[in-house]
Amino acid sequence: MALWVRYAQGETRGFGTLEGGTIAVHAGDLLAGAAPTGETLALADVSLEAPVRPGAFIGLWNNYAELAAKQGNATPEFPLYFLKNPRCVVGPGEAIRPPAGYTGKVLYEGELGLVIGRTVSNADEAEAEAAIFGLTCVNDVTALDLLTADASFPQWARAKGCDGFGPIGPAIATGLDWRALRVTVALNGRVRQDYPCSDMILPPARIVSLISREMTLQPGDVIACGTSVGALPMRPGMTVEVTIAGIGTLSNPYAPG
Amino acid sequence: MALWVRYAQGETRGFGTLEGGTIAVHAGDLLAGAAPTGETLALADVSLEAPVRPGAFIGLWNNYAELAAKQGNATPEFPLYFLKNPRCVVGPGEAIRPPAGYTGKVLYEGELGLVIGRTVSNADEAEAEAAIFGLTCVNDVTALDLLTADASFPQWARAKGCDGFGPIGPAIATGLDWRALRVTVALNGRVRQDYPCSDMILPPARIVSLISREMTLQPGDVIACGTSVGALPMRPGMTVEVTIAGIGTLSNPYAPG
Repeated sequence: MALWVRYAQGETRGFGTLEGGTIAVHAGDLLAGAAPTGETLALADVSLEAPVRPGAFIGLWNNYAELAAKQGNATPEFPLYFLKNPRCVVGPGEAIRPPAGYTGKVLYEGELGLVIGRTVSNADEAEAEAAIFGLTCVNDVTALDLLTADASFPQWARAKGCDGFGPIGPAIATGLDWRALRVTVALNGRVRQDYPCSDMILPPARIVSLISREMTLQPGDVIACGTSVGALPMRPGMTVEVTIAGIGTLSNPYAPG
Repeated sequence: MALWVRYAQGETRGFGTLEGGTIAVHAGDLLAGAAPTGETLALADVSLEAPVRPGAFIGLWNNYAELAAKQGNATPEFPLYFLKNPRCVVGPGEAIRPPAGYTGKVLYEGELGLVIGRTVSNADEAEAEAAIFGLTCVNDVTALDLLTADASFPQWARAKGCDGFGPIGPAIATGLDWRALRVTVALNGRVRQDYPCSDMILPPARIVSLISREMTLQPGDVIACGTSVGALPMRPGMTVEVTIAGIGTLSNPYAPG
């Protein structure tokens, strides 16, 4: 069990493990063989950044039984996914903003994120399980009116890939059992999503195994496991907090454009 | 006017400009301030690699008038795009393979590719035009049966993002006028696509300008401008060649899985 964070302190950037209010600074590769330097920093003296910068950022649709039942969606046997622009990732505290000129709805979606730790291709579920380095919180932000703007072509990549639409963090937790987790989302402190990860239709190892049959996954890739009921539009000025106990709270303001 | 290529010669990798059968080796950043080293190599003595490794690989749907008319699609006012897995890129000569266990149709789609040369965000068309470093050939390979495997969710990212489904090359041409180009695709030497880029619905500068309103583009990003009529399935053992005069021929075998 460890909580990995990336931080900035002035011009210095680094990473380490978080215990209480203290970061044990590490050197090397966060995902493959980091070692403590002996230095420690107070969490209060740094700002946290996104704990990973994925090369591929995958998001699942329709992967929770309660939401599938509510929307009348069939139970998928293969992960139904879109790709988010991998550079839409932002860290804790960074503002989510609507794109220039967009005045439509912008939804939060709190999700469990899988962080891939090693290259994985055509893997069985045991190998896939071992390739998951850890878990993080994802806010899979969506410009709903872009998704549905063209009747002939649902625009998943566009609606979910706007700059800033991929908050991740605050940490990557290792050694957690996903089955025991809940995803909670609060909007200005009011809880709007609160669902158990055990309601997931395709579990993490199966997701990774099935995707890896077709697309090799690389260290640092992030898979957002889909959301459940309660995703709603944000209004400018609101703060959205995605919390998974054992990982932490990913808090971002939704700012005017 | 220059033709930029990346090459491998044994363990050595490099890049340069191609004139006739000779590469003038360059150092620095291909997209931003490369300078000739004075060394030259014979094209015959190296193997060409993909000329760019995009961080974001965007593909357009429904961007040619002839195909839109044939399929009865409305004329889009905004680029209708999906994201290809950026690591599906392969270079000239590399095999395209169906994913493990997939026995359905795999289509070639010959396309003009735009290579972004500088960071561009919320750009007008003049700025967008200046952000296009050059043009390349793209084969936007598609596992058609994956795209349509789930009735509730068209799987664009999955069907177009399999390993090896993004041949790019053989070169990036600068200084070409896209309006004068034709995209030709030959399957085992038989021409199957042959269409003028001037039939494009949204032209390159408008594509870049509109996408950049929402998603910042970075140097090395590739935008495949969509295909026109004549995309067909490949059969194992075939060779597919995408040719754009002034850029070259991107040739890839379609190999059994």
